[in-house]
This record gives sequence, C-alpha cells and structure tokens, in this order.
Amino acid sequence: MKQKNSTGRLKIIPLGGLEQIGMNITAFEYEDTIVVVDCGMAFPEDDMLGIDYVLPDVTYLEENYSKVKGFVITHGHEDHIGAIPYVFKKINVPIYTTRLTMALIDKKLEEHGMLKSVKRKVVKYGQNINLGDIRVEFIKTNHSIQDAAALAIYTPAGTVIHTGDFKVDYTPVFGDAIDLQRFAEIGRKGVLALMCDSTNAERPGHTMSEKTVGVTFDRIFAEHQKSRLIIATFASNVDRVQQIINSAAKYGRKVCLEGRSMISVIGTAVELGYIDDSAHTLSTLEDIRNFPPEKVVLVTTGSQGESMAALSRMAANLHKKVKIMPGDVIIFSSHPIPGNEKAVSNVINELTELGADIIFEDAHVSGHACQEDIKLIYALVQPKYAIPVHGETRHLRAQATLAQSLGIPKENIFVLHSGDVLQISEEEARIVGKVQVGQILVDGLGVGDVGNVVIRDRQHLAEDGIIIVVLTLEKYTNRLLAGPDLVSRGFVYVKESEDLLEEANEVVEDAVFDCLDHNVTDWSKIKGEIRESLSDFVWKRTQRRPMILPIIMEADD
Amino acid sequence: MKQKNSTGRLKIIPLGGLEQIGMNITAFEYEDTIVVVDCGMAFPEDDMLGIDYVLPDVTYLEENYSKVKGFVITHGHEDHIGAIPYVFKKINVPIYTTRLTMALIDKKLEEHGMLKSVKRKVVKYGQNINLGDIRVEFIKTNHSIQDAAALAIYTPAGTVIHTGDFKVDYTPVFGDAIDLQRFAEIGRKGVLALMCDSTNAERPGHTMSEKTVGVTFDRIFAEHQKSRLIIATFASNVDRVQQIINSAAKYGRKVCLEGRSMISVIGTAVELGYIDDSAHTLSTLEDIRNFPPEKVVLVTTGSQGESMAALSRMAANLHKKVKIMPGDVIIFSSHPIPGNEKAVSNVINELTELGADIIFEDAHVSGHACQEDIKLIYALVQPKYAIPVHGETRHLRAQATLAQSLGIPKENIFVLHSGDVLQISEEEARIVGKVQVGQILVDGLGVGDVGNVVIRDRQHLAEDGIIIVVLTLEKYTNRLLAGPDLVSRGFVYVKESEDLLEEANEVVEDAVFDCLDHNVTDWSKIKGEIRESLSDFVWKRTQRRPMILPIIMEADD
Repeated sequence: MKQKNSTGRLKIIPLGGLEQIGMNITAFEYEDTIVVVDCGMAFPEDDMLGIDYVLPDVTYLEENYSKVKGFVITHGHEDHIGAIPYVFKKINVPIYTTRLTMALIDKKLEEHGMLKSVKRKVVKYGQNINLGDIRVEFIKTNHSIQDAAALAIYTPAGTVIHTGDFKVDYTPVFGDAIDLQRFAEIGRKGVLALMCDSTNAERPGHTMSEKTVGVTFDRIFAEHQKSRLIIATFASNVDRVQQIINSAAKYGRKVCLEGRSMISVIGTAVELGYIDDSAHTLSTLEDIRNFPPEKVVLVTTGSQGESMAALSRMAANLHKKVKIMPGDVIIFSSHPIPGNEKAVSNVINELTELGADIIFEDAHVSGHACQEDIKLIYALVQPKYAIPVHGETRHLRAQATLAQSLGIPKENIFVLHSGDVLQISEEEARIVGKVQVGQILVDGLGVGDVGNVVIRDRQHLAEDGIIIVVLTLEKYTNRLLAGPDLVSRGFVYVKESEDLLEEANEVVEDAVFDCLDHNVTDWSKIKGEIRESLSDFVWKRTQRRPMILPIIMEADD
Repeated sequence: MKQKNSTGRLKIIPLGGLEQIGMNITAFEYEDTIVVVDCGMAFPEDDMLGIDYVLPDVTYLEENYSKVKGFVITHGHEDHIGAIPYVFKKINVPIYTTRLTMALIDKKLEEHGMLKSVKRKVVKYGQNINLGDIRVEFIKTNHSIQDAAALAIYTPAGTVIHTGDFKVDYTPVFGDAIDLQRFAEIGRKGVLALMCDSTNAERPGHTMSEKTVGVTFDRIFAEHQKSRLIIATFASNVDRVQQIINSAAKYGRKVCLEGRSMISVIGTAVELGYIDDSAHTLSTLEDIRNFPPEKVVLVTTGSQGESMAALSRMAANLHKKVKIMPGDVIIFSSHPIPGNEKAVSNVINELTELGADIIFEDAHVSGHACQEDIKLIYALVQPKYAIPVHGETRHLRAQATLAQSLGIPKENIFVLHSGDVLQISEEEARIVGKVQVGQILVDGLGVGDVGNVVIRDRQHLAEDGIIIVVLTLEKYTNRLLAGPDLVSRGFVYVKESEDLLEEANEVVEDAVFDCLDHNVTDWSKIKGEIRESLSDFVWKRTQRRPMILPIIMEADD
C-alpha cells in the first residue's frame, strides 16, 4: 500500500524549554512557514555562577528567517515572553497575543527602545490568525495570570493543540472559565497532537480554584484584625492581588504594593481594567504613613526568598520604608519553586527573629493543571499523538504515563528534548533530526560573552580560590628580574598561614630556578612546571585545589 | 522577702546548634562543674563556598578546662558527634554514651588515631553518671538511629530534661519504645526545665511509627516483583535497612549496600547485633553479579542528591559497578532536607531520563516528634521553664508557641541564641551574659584557616571572576620595566571580548603612566588608581564587578 503523503509533513521543534530549564519557545514548521509559540527566558541554575538569566539560542530561526511568519504568545510570564527583546533584535516578525500579555510585552519592548520597530497585534479568544500555511486560533484558558490562551494550530498536516500553561478553574476571579466546549469541538473534528502542560503531572486530583484563596484571605483577615498584614506573592499574580483588595475592602484596610515588579505589573493591570478597586483601597506607602498598622495590608514581592526582593530586605532590616514589628503577620501566598526552599526558610527565620508571625499554609493554589485536569483535556481533545510540554523531565514522563493510561499507544507519545525535530503527520511521527539549540548566558550587559569555560573558572575560583605566581624575565637573556611572587585570594587567611605560603614560595622558586638553570625558554613549559609543583604541594598540605595562575612578564631592558 | 539562694545557680550555655546551623553542643555549668551535652558538626550553608563542614568554637570550654568533667552524647548522628575528633584535640575529658553511639564515635576517633587517648564509657538506659556536682541519667527514646537517649541532668539547682532528638514510637523496629514512664516519674518529682527537640514543632499530629515504612516496603516489593529495586536512604538509618532486609527476605531478594558511609555504619550495626539478617540476604555486588535484577535490592546513599554519593553517580552514569537500566524502580526512602530539593529533583530527572521509575512518596517517616508528641512530653515532664532546642529559629519559636498554649508563662520560655548564658534556678531564670561562640570552617585539611574574608573573596570571584593587572617597576628609579599586562579568569570569553580587553589595557596604561609621570612612588596609591579606573571602565561596559587585583613587582636591576 502506498503511503498517503498528500497532506505533507509538519515539523515541531522545541528550541528550548523542555527538560530542566524553563525557556519556552517552539517552532512549528510546515514547508515555507514557521510559526513560533512563546519566547521565554530562564533563570540560572545554581551552578551558573554570576549569571543573571538565560536566553535560548535561535540560530535555527535566523537561518530560516524568511520562513518565520510570526510569534504567537500564550501568556505573559517571563518564561514565555522574557526573551522577546533579545530575540527580536535578530528576528523581527509580528507578535500575536491577548491584551494583557501584549501590554506586558509592550513594557519590555519600550524598556529596550523597540516598541516602534516591532509589529504587534492583539488577539481575542476565538480569533484566528493566518500565518502562511498555518492558522492559529486562541482559546480561553485559566492560569495564575489573566488572558492566558491555549492555541489550536491548524496545518495542512493536521491540527495541533498547545495548552500553554493552564489550569481548569470553573470559578475564576476575573473573566470566564476555560473554554472546554471549544477544546471538545476541535477534538471532535480530529486532532493530530496535543501538547499539554506537565508541571503538575505528578500531582493527583484537581487543582483548586483561585477563589478558594480568597476564602482563606477572608479568614486570615478576620482572625488578625489587630495586626498589620504583609502578604508575599508573585508580582504577576493579578487575581491574587484582586482578592487581597477584596478582603481589605471588607475589613477596612488599605492595600500598599511593594517591590518594583509588583508595582509595574499591577499598575498595568489596573490601567487595563483587570483589577477592580472600586472601594479605593489601593494606596501608596506615603498615603498610609499615619495609618495605624492594623488598617494596612502590604503586598510584596519576595515570596521566593529572592535576596534583592522587598520581603527579603524587610527581613534583613534593610528596607528603607518598611520595618518589621513584633506582632506583624506575614503570609506567604506562594509555594517555593524547587531550589528556593532554603532561601525562603532563611527569610522566615529572620522574620521570626524580628517577632513576626508567619502563615505559610493554605494561602496559595497552583496555576497548573493536576492529573485529573490533564486527563480531562485528553478526553476532550482525543489526540492521536501526545507531546508533553512545560516541566522537568520527570514531569514530562509523568504526563507520558498518564497519556498511556488513557489509551494512547506508547509509540505515539513523544518526550522531546530541546532541538529535536519531530516530523508528524496522520501516517507517522518520528524524530528526524536535531537543530542547534543552547543556552545563552546573560551576565550584566553581556549577552553570550560568558560560557562554559568562564563558568567552570568561576566554579573553580569559588571552590578554593586562586594563587597567582608572577615573575619577570629579561628579554633575550631570560634572566629573572623580579619574583617569583605569590599572591592568593579566597585560598587561606594569609596571616595565619604564613608558613604555608613561605614554603609554597620556596617550591615555586625551586621550580623556576630548575627551569632557568636548564635553559628552558619555553614559557608554557615554565608555567607548567610552576603549576604542577605548586599544585602538588598545596594538595598535600591542604587537600585543596585552588586555581594556580602563573604569569610571566618580559622586561625590555 | 529575702531571695532563697541556697540551691545555687545553674548556667545553660548553648555553644552552637541553635538557630540555623546544626552543630549541637551545650554546656551545663554549676559552680566548678561543667558537663557538655553532644559535640556536633554542621554542613556548610550555600554561601560558604568550598567549605566541607563547620565546627563549633569551644574557646569557652578551653578557658574553663579544669571544670569540664565530661561529655554526654545523646545519639550517633553527625550533628551530635561529628566535632568530637576536633574538639577532643583541645579538651580531652571522658565521653559517656550508649553502645551504638559509642561504636560510631570509636570509629571517628580511630580514623584520627585518638582511640587510645580518649576515655570512653558505655552507659545503659537508667544508669546514672556522676560528674562533679552534676548527675546525668540516660533515658530510652526513639529516633531514626538506635540507642538514642534523653538526659535527666540533676543539679543542686534542679533537674533539667534534655530530650536529644527523639520521636515517640510505640512499635519501634528494634528495641523498646521510648520510656514515657520515666519521663513521668521524673516530672512528678519536679523538673526545672525541659529542653525539647523542635525540628517538627511546626507539624501537627503525631509522627508515624518507623514500622509503617516496613508495610510500605512490603507493598512496593509485592508490586514490583519483576524489577530491580534501588532504595536510597540515610546511611545511618539502621532500622530502615533492617526493614528492607525483612521485605527482601520475604520476597526472595538479596540486599546489597552501596556507598562508603552506608557500608561503614551498617557494618557496625551488624557487628553489634543491631541488625538481624538471619535469612542471610546481605550480599556484596560481587556475590550477586550473576543474579537476575529482579532478585536484587540495592540500598544506597545519595537520597539527598549529594553530588558525590552513590545514587548521584548512578544517575550521571558515572558509577563504576551499577548501571541504571530501563525498568529499574528507584525508591527515595527519605525527605529532602531543606536546601537539597533541587539537587534531589535533578537526580530524579537524570534517573527518569535513563528509563527508571521513581517512587517518592510514603517510603519515609520522620525521626522527630510532631506537635502532639511534643505536647505529650510537656504533659509528662511539666517543667517550670521551657527551652526549645534543635531546629531553626522558626522551629524553636513554634515550640515556644506550643509551650505557651500548654500553660507555661511566656516569661518562662527561652528561645536562646548560641553563646547566651541562661542562669536558671527555682527563683528565676534570665540571660546573664554571652560567651564566645562561632563557626570554625573546615576546607580540606585546614581547620579555621578559612574565614569570612576568604569566603567573601570566593563569593566575589564566583560572581564575576577576576582581572589581574601585573607590572614590573625598576628598584629606586620606578621605571616601568614590564607590563601592565591584564590576565582574567571567570570574567569573559577572551576571544570574543578582544576589543573590551584591549580598551581595558589602555585604561590601565593611562592610569599607570599618569602615576609615574607625576612621580607617584607609593605602590598602594598606584594600585588604587589601577583598581578604580579599571573597575569604572568594566562596570560601564559590562555592568559587572570582577575582583581587580593589581600586582606590582620590583626588579633589582
């Protein structure tokens, strides 16, 4: 039987965002059309010393620039929009997304002076965008930020549904519930592949409605009417802030925002009408200077223990305007993101030490679908292929197991790695290649000028410090004019290790004189001898491996 | 009314171990008698770069050496015994503890060649030790290691009960349940102060019996009869290993231990009869080389994601003898200690990637008392004063809140800091002073030769690397013979930043020539100029602050 091939083949290429790092960016390629979903950045792993954030390598898009018709964005979180200013310096094509998401992107572009040069189009739910051979429909979902969308990606090879980050919230704080009917309708017509959020794929049950947090806030406000309340949450969780405003209105408190990102995002939300403050509770720290503490609730960043965020500065007594007082009640309206637990705990310890009471439980629900919600989407969409997205390997695999339990054959489930080219059609799906992907490290103003070698050096320096050996040789004669001198940093207390350093100096002198006596003129050889003899000596005496850096200078005279 | 003073005053001085760091060591001082409870080390915080572990500063004990009558040890965990070899180089007095605890201490002393020089006495539960004016009784408790003891510390000023780390286990795997009757009996006679484990003081309810984990193991063994099982747990959790042996015997598997500390501790436990292997399941990797995987269970260290532990090496495909195979079932019989969550998650991702199935839930219970258990001890002991111990500030405060809820007046509850001298008697208790305490950092063989300055240098190096500026001046004339040369490490990719580094060189040259032209001969001034001009330039161009280290050499000629 001849293979049906008339529909052509779709390629799905994650350019980042799978596995452990969170930068979401995926190319959908059909013949001469490429549509890109999301354009996120990631925060550095623990071992990426000194790195501020991480961007995706978009070489593949640059090489296929002429095909790239546009970016469609699912929602306004950093791991989905954060790389836009950097990527759009290389690939300037139109951006399509919902209203709040676009407002947040606009802010970024404005900061980079790029607002006028990038074409942007706000899209409504249900609206379709034609991009070459591909058509994209935006579908209403719920998430921990408003205006989140799933995407139906219609291609001649078939329809792919990409959920974005989502939860199923039947009673959202703002706007409508997820459009389950539309998922069903598209599913009924036949869906080639489902790319579904895996973040909570290990968690059984349903994700609770955001509204349940409002109930908790009401209880906390009722129980602590004599205390100042300080609530830490994510800057972008507009609905959470709305619910704090609601409780504050009920209990006669004013709401102050603290933290630059909090003020910026919530400011945008208020401007666009995504927050209802008809009771006029929102105030500034100036406004409430003469208010009694029990009439105030502060909403602050720093729920993840980030060292520069407002709450951490309050805990360390470094905040200029807010001093923690005994009796303050501090509510963590968040769960620690894996890796931040210790930092959060340290902040709690500091706050406790200052006499504050901490509330850690119940004042948060997740923005991601749990197992039963994921199963619901599969049941509505009934895809032929399952391609779990968003989450670490363990989460992607957990969704793969779920998909299999729902009857999708194992060979139709793809846990992809960044750069995999998945070629997919009704007839078959398989990985046909690999494109260049990678992490571009950003440190200060430098984008990509720090890489593995530099990071490894930093790790080495961090571990045991550095010993620098300098000496000056006379040009032509190679006579030793100065040194060898040893200088160390981050190795030992110099004063208390005088003997050790003196002996180290002798070891180096021996090595140098040995070279010079034998007329060794090759500097790299001399450096090698210094490195080896000093390294051996230091290891024997301290069991440490500081970086050893010999520097030879040449004197003209 | 004249204050009754005939009983004299007891001083309780935590020399470490309160607040965030885990080294437990507390002095009990009554006139010319000092008895020390525990002698633990701590593992480094994240920002203590390159540090292997942390020891307590025992200057106070050294200064009062003649008073120190002995150390009594509650149990054999590192945070209670780990500092013994270091502290006993300075203060050599007798050690009193239970049998397994002593065996683990003996191993440590032997490694340091100190076994013959330290006097040690094994104590049984119920036994009393007279140490000057203080008498200490050992009371049976339960914990995640066997032979744990609480201490009744009888002094002329009154009785103090110190629980050590404990849980209430009515059905322990080995030996008896905690001796609640004895707590009650002593409580009935009157207890001045209770020092109770706070680790789980934030957790409601009771801590489950260790035996419940055995039931879980049985279920897991029954459900996975076709797979190799690999169980990760703490090296010191002898009862946990016993239960694995029990399940293995039932299901016809051999048990292999992997990881140096695991083999060492369990070896000791087997020798002393704390493990029953009458079914002869314990084997070596050699023994089971020809066994089918489904007849084997490996018990391994690395449940905390420690990078050098056996499980992490298996996950990274670096383990010499054990290769993870698809279908292996890996059970985490532990909870991540705060701060280790990300490392554990990374190991899980790697194992998942290799095709292993992970079981993370239910195969662990805590070794520490939860709120209801803590309340039980307070109800039995009915102390006048409460001094929460063992835990971070938040946990100590949580126990303080519990104690208050049980009717202990707030002013009778003391959340101490390391070094606080709490003077305590029937009449009153108050903090009367502060003694020298601190953290001695151990890096390789060096004890205390790395401190704040060195650590800060490492942090600085880790963040943005280092730029070294070297130049050679002629003696007397100050003529520039060589340099200035710039060498950097951990700063930028040199090749891709040639322009930047060339310009930096010019900046430094300008600074140097400016100094020399103006006849500046003070080297520290020249170095200052170099540092300042280069630092400014680098910040402007990169927004980074690498360490800048100018080195000036003097040539004789």
